[in-house]
Amino acid sequence: MLNTKTDIDKLIYIFSKMPGLGPRSARRVVLHLLKNKEIFMRPLADSIYNAYNTAKFCNICGNLDSQDVCAICLDERRDQSVICVVETIADLWAMERGSIYRGIYHVLGGVLSAAEGRTPSDLTIEKLVSRVGSSQVVKEVIIATNATVEGQTTAFYLIDKLSLCNIAITRLAQGVPIGGELDYLDEGTLGAALASRGPIK
Amino acid sequence: MLNTKTDIDKLIYIFSKMPGLGPRSARRVVLHLLKNKEIFMRPLADSIYNAYNTAKFCNICGNLDSQDVCAICLDERRDQSVICVVETIADLWAMERGSIYRGIYHVLGGVLSAAEGRTPSDLTIEKLVSRVGSSQVVKEVIIATNATVEGQTTAFYLIDKLSLCNIAITRLAQGVPIGGELDYLDEGTLGAALASRGPIK
Repeated sequence: MLNTKTDIDKLIYIFSKMPGLGPRSARRVVLHLLKNKEIFMRPLADSIYNAYNTAKFCNICGNLDSQDVCAICLDERRDQSVICVVETIADLWAMERGSIYRGIYHVLGGVLSAAEGRTPSDLTIEKLVSRVGSSQVVKEVIIATNATVEGQTTAFYLIDKLSLCNIAITRLAQGVPIGGELDYLDEGTLGAALASRGPIK
Repeated sequence: MLNTKTDIDKLIYIFSKMPGLGPRSARRVVLHLLKNKEIFMRPLADSIYNAYNTAKFCNICGNLDSQDVCAICLDERRDQSVICVVETIADLWAMERGSIYRGIYHVLGGVLSAAEGRTPSDLTIEKLVSRVGSSQVVKEVIIATNATVEGQTTAFYLIDKLSLCNIAITRLAQGVPIGGELDYLDEGTLGAALASRGPIK
């Protein structure tokens, strides 16, 4: 890009390695930063240092927070008897955005995948089973893995592993998304919606 | 997103304000950073600090570099008699990527725009005119503004301003892009390509 490898080139290179960014968008971001040096650059660098120093994975559920046991696990107003099992922290955040769920979580850290060589020992499945098994409080585990082939495979594996625990195992309903138009939905979704149809209340 | 405004939330917020990024992609980037803390976070923060401290706008052409007069302007192997006028630093970098041009540059800092209230005094047009007028070396100015309405308007304004200087004024050729298919090109491009047609060599 420039003849010499400058600090700017290095910064662009690092940004271009972020997910969703490539060389072109990394250049745009860095130019934007440099044009607004005082407003953006120091706060961003400070913020990265702060997050680097404070961010910790929760020992219980695997969420990211500024403390070892995260705010969700510590929150006494939340229902500690329901655990929602999600694939990633991004999925946990998605559930939290709507404030629709008042239980606690367990982050698997991915899905089982033959293609990517991810086996049960790479996920936090054993930890979930012992967490559920040793608890006197947990009454229900909601499996909220993605509705992909790998997500469903992982769900079935989890159901098998948890079947010995004396708890209810549920999963998110499948069907027509709110605002969805039938003409644009795949047969799989329509089939699931039809099979799970219910009475009109 | 989380109940308390943590360092992580702040970092996501800052990333979401970058061009091309929104809340969702900012979350992806931050999760990626936090999952690879040692590899990415410190180098990124260090790199931002370094660029913040070293990056300077070139006094002559307006390029960004680690020195006040940029490496391109200082490079004696480059042809100092040809100045390529571009809208932005991103455009300068685009020209440099191919190593197709061996002259020097002038960055306008944008285009004339009635809609956005950008007048000649907001651009570095006066600086270009005095740079060309006071130089004994400059023989040609290549106008390389974008082929948009505003880019062309700016080009005509520049041509008018530079017409009193005793130099050649040229602009980038317009026509069919390499690999372009006629069926997918607009009439404007086809018209320009037809009008500028030349003999087959």
